[in-house]
Amino acid sequence: MNIVLLDPRQTQSEFWTISAKRQVEHLTTHVDVQVGDTLKVGIRDGKRYLTQIVSISDERIQLKALQEESVPAKHPVTLIVAMPRPKVLRRLMMDAVTLGVEKIILLHSYRVDKSYWQTPFLQQLDQYVTLGLEQAGDTIAPKIELYKRFKPFVEDVLPTMISTERPAYVAHPYAVQRMPAGIDHDCSIIIGPEGGFIPYEIDLLIKNGCQAVSLGSRIIRTETVIPYVLGRLFSH
Amino acid sequence: MNIVLLDPRQTQSEFWTISAKRQVEHLTTHVDVQVGDTLKVGIRDGKRYLTQIVSISDERIQLKALQEESVPAKHPVTLIVAMPRPKVLRRLMMDAVTLGVEKIILLHSYRVDKSYWQTPFLQQLDQYVTLGLEQAGDTIAPKIELYKRFKPFVEDVLPTMISTERPAYVAHPYAVQRMPAGIDHDCSIIIGPEGGFIPYEIDLLIKNGCQAVSLGSRIIRTETVIPYVLGRLFSH
Repeated sequence: MNIVLLDPRQTQSEFWTISAKRQVEHLTTHVDVQVGDTLKVGIRDGKRYLTQIVSISDERIQLKALQEESVPAKHPVTLIVAMPRPKVLRRLMMDAVTLGVEKIILLHSYRVDKSYWQTPFLQQLDQYVTLGLEQAGDTIAPKIELYKRFKPFVEDVLPTMISTERPAYVAHPYAVQRMPAGIDHDCSIIIGPEGGFIPYEIDLLIKNGCQAVSLGSRIIRTETVIPYVLGRLFSH
Repeated sequence: MNIVLLDPRQTQSEFWTISAKRQVEHLTTHVDVQVGDTLKVGIRDGKRYLTQIVSISDERIQLKALQEESVPAKHPVTLIVAMPRPKVLRRLMMDAVTLGVEKIILLHSYRVDKSYWQTPFLQQLDQYVTLGLEQAGDTIAPKIELYKRFKPFVEDVLPTMISTERPAYVAHPYAVQRMPAGIDHDCSIIIGPEGGFIPYEIDLLIKNGCQAVSLGSRIIRTETVIPYVLGRLFSH
């Protein structure tokens, strides 16, 4: 937790209040904050501030804002990823948020087990976003969309997201073209499931405007390929 | 498992033998291989082959080599990372191996809990390497070294690894210089612990030839920053 993310309602009065059990416990137990300490605080979907602690109790920590701080910029990228195994979902979402992805789309695919869409973890996406923002020092939650049907998304939604200024790259081991690097334009990245997209899916993606690009001969797990690709794309 | 990694001793006779319980179970249960199927096999620290299955039992699978395949190239990088929490160690090692790091050094640091060096996971490093190689389709294990004392490593070992052709970059949030991108030379990357290196450690690293470089204003977890940095460095 590199900033404490607060709901705007917690910052209405002169003194702001941290009341979430998770945050109060982390600050009092792990960080061992004291009255007078400064604390970095973000207002969810708002600004970020350096604050000072004015009071500490077991239930709440009260703060006063000292000065505004800058919120890190996001990468102009939409990450479209095949719905991962539940145990991978949390980390994948946290990492994508921490790394500053603007929009995240979870998509069904032939090799995605239908049971993945039943996981209770899907009810906790907002919590994963909060953890990712608090890790990064960011305050702005990315947009998140779920599409449980592959074909309608690729044929009806995806084309509206693609233009010559805003290409979509699908990672595909057999592609000749390499994944671009050091780009300075918006784009979408499409990452398949374990085992990859099936040929029908790759063909449909290409037919609807995506460019198939290779990441080289190493086969990288979904949760690892996302930071790897983001580091490569936005290396300028 | 994108290739099956075998010990050279398992490939001496005409027919090669997969006998490790983990591998046999994975192939018979998850992949449901059949006699006559082809299978990608790597010989640990040796070559990689396309093979064909000639017999399957509960205890072993026998193969014959069909043709040699190319082993993916490694990145000419030494990853020097502060010893992570035990629960992070497995993933960090697997990812570094999967992404083709040539050499991995686990280093002590002021903010590394001494208990981390007692974890039984350290006895399983070789197993993590195997899993990382099987994921990547690689056969060559990276060199791994452990240094439980920071100062002697930085003053006596690190300088021998650094030259004008082979710089060392330490990720440091307050550095002015950005982490380079798209490099085509060897280098070392140094990643600190949770909470970062202390100023004394950063100063000692710089005094001994390291360049402090920034990854921008987002604070990224150790296990996430490694693929992010590798994607950035080797994007040419």
